[in-house]
Amino acid sequence: MSEKTIQVNLSPERKPKPESNQLGFGKIFTDHMFVMDYTEGKGWHDPRVVPYQPLTLDPASMIFHYGQTVFEGLKAYLTNDNRILLFRPERNMQRLNRSNDRLCIPNIDEELALEALKKLILVDKEWIPTAEGTSLYIRPFIIATEPFLGVHASNSYQFIIILSPVGSYYKEGIQPVKILVESDYVRAVAGGTGEAKTAGNYASSLKAQEVASQKEYSQVLWLDGLEKKYIEEVGSMNVFFKIDGEVVTPALNGSILEGVTRNSVIHLLKHWGVPVSERKISMQEVYDAYKAGKLEEAFGTGTAAVISPVGEFFWKDEKLVINEGKTGEISKRLYQTITGIQNGTEQDPFDWVVEVHQEAVAK
Amino acid sequence: MSEKTIQVNLSPERKPKPESNQLGFGKIFTDHMFVMDYTEGKGWHDPRVVPYQPLTLDPASMIFHYGQTVFEGLKAYLTNDNRILLFRPERNMQRLNRSNDRLCIPNIDEELALEALKKLILVDKEWIPTAEGTSLYIRPFIIATEPFLGVHASNSYQFIIILSPVGSYYKEGIQPVKILVESDYVRAVAGGTGEAKTAGNYASSLKAQEVASQKEYSQVLWLDGLEKKYIEEVGSMNVFFKIDGEVVTPALNGSILEGVTRNSVIHLLKHWGVPVSERKISMQEVYDAYKAGKLEEAFGTGTAAVISPVGEFFWKDEKLVINEGKTGEISKRLYQTITGIQNGTEQDPFDWVVEVHQEAVAK
Repeated sequence: MSEKTIQVNLSPERKPKPESNQLGFGKIFTDHMFVMDYTEGKGWHDPRVVPYQPLTLDPASMIFHYGQTVFEGLKAYLTNDNRILLFRPERNMQRLNRSNDRLCIPNIDEELALEALKKLILVDKEWIPTAEGTSLYIRPFIIATEPFLGVHASNSYQFIIILSPVGSYYKEGIQPVKILVESDYVRAVAGGTGEAKTAGNYASSLKAQEVASQKEYSQVLWLDGLEKKYIEEVGSMNVFFKIDGEVVTPALNGSILEGVTRNSVIHLLKHWGVPVSERKISMQEVYDAYKAGKLEEAFGTGTAAVISPVGEFFWKDEKLVINEGKTGEISKRLYQTITGIQNGTEQDPFDWVVEVHQEAVAK
Repeated sequence: MSEKTIQVNLSPERKPKPESNQLGFGKIFTDHMFVMDYTEGKGWHDPRVVPYQPLTLDPASMIFHYGQTVFEGLKAYLTNDNRILLFRPERNMQRLNRSNDRLCIPNIDEELALEALKKLILVDKEWIPTAEGTSLYIRPFIIATEPFLGVHASNSYQFIIILSPVGSYYKEGIQPVKILVESDYVRAVAGGTGEAKTAGNYASSLKAQEVASQKEYSQVLWLDGLEKKYIEEVGSMNVFFKIDGEVVTPALNGSILEGVTRNSVIHLLKHWGVPVSERKISMQEVYDAYKAGKLEEAFGTGTAAVISPVGEFFWKDEKLVINEGKTGEISKRLYQTITGIQNGTEQDPFDWVVEVHQEAVAK
């Protein structure tokens, strides 16, 4: 048997499955998980699907001290005709390896990881929720496990995939959010880890998020770390503005995460003939467009919400109410098209979805 | 019995203790650890000394995904007359709480933490090595344990202290290191987490460290993230330069860690009447001083090495060899004085050391 054969060890017990209105996001986990080990000299080995279980790690494991870790997030959807679909999963695996490079973590075999993900989903396929807007959230992540208190790259790792059935992000239809433009805290800077999907980026964002919540804003809009002028991301999403008929999003610059939804939105807009550009854009430019009545829409893009329209920005003591606080036309069309492609109810002109074929799960 | 009483559960087994020449740094751990839990509503509770054991954590625990964690590092020393000394431990606990604030982690009771640390050391006092230059390294850390895949502050945490007997940092006496001035990667920026002792700062430093190692430099010197002109830190140490008789160190600016050794060095230099200033200092200024023959010494300060003299900087394709690559007078004097105060062989004019009194360890 090859080192690369994924072993499957089924759980003797099955947890009760929640009702679709009990799902929430990222709180409930399925019966199984995927695990693969890395040790120096031996490489990645022993890929296996095992019962969902706690990780048992030495308290000196480097993940607890030096944050050497990366993760991904994607979703599986069940179609009306009972097919399981993934949305551009190969891009998540490619990005996982780009994050690995930045964090000095050994690359994974992207094909094997994708196979592992499919096998795990098939084992837990009864956990994929079926109500509208629900899906199975997939969280691949890698952690440094060497028990050593010194700052260097770990000599051992675990690659793990866990699954969480998640509810509709919008309980009552797509809803615009209110965003605080952040002027004190910084998420990332060129030369840092902003374009990698790694824990530290999220840890550093908590404080700003807390301050925004106290002011009753649901997320923050991050400006660049150097001049605090140029727009980077919103919360943990990429951000788009429709100004005078053109859709603009910040160009990738080394500190912005390259979102899969971001890329899909750009593709779709081009396909539709909507002008779209990736470029540097300042908050002042957005403000000026607003004042001139030309800021038509703003929205965030990410795996969790897909499209998150922005109804209001708060910047320098001023409220910028966009499109009367309502969801714009482009936001709506993008949301319907992308979620439709994801759940199999819309045409998939770019071959984005990947079907998880339900033949023989290995014993 | 109070919620704050530290319970002690002794290990039935004791591991063999290593020879002093086998110690290394951060690889060997003692027989016990301290653990305390936090749950929302209940606060910090159940402080306990338990046998050293693996942590058992749900794979969805937030520490593995969003890096909400802080740590500290300090040492205990055994004196020739068998007393156990700590060096300014209250500053580590104060800094731990400052880091907690930045990372949205609930503050700990600093007195209780210090008591816990002392109790743990007394339980494992036979692990304090006695050979010259050796000590017991102490690693307090806090991790977010809520099993939840969403970016918010965790509702549960563990505060843990582990101990590691460590060897002399310098096997053959204090030795100057060679440092690469980093021009591509950035450690931290104002508004980020640079002044907090949190995992993500160390994760982001690994790549630059890897590049430096390939060029046979042992550490990197970090410049500011904005202009890449001003000096911040060296490796995971603070840095000092002696220029034309004056000792200069970068002023605390929000992205530099406030080192306990840094603070102690400044105190000692002032006490000795050596001119010392905390201010913004550019790499160009260091270079110009070098060219003018006025760069007399450079050294890093940190808990692990105490004082780490710099024998060479590499910047813009040029080697700056300092003091003929030898340890300077101030570096030597600081090293001898601070390590002497720490191990009880030198006068302690500032009441820096705290003795761990060996009366009654609770059952």
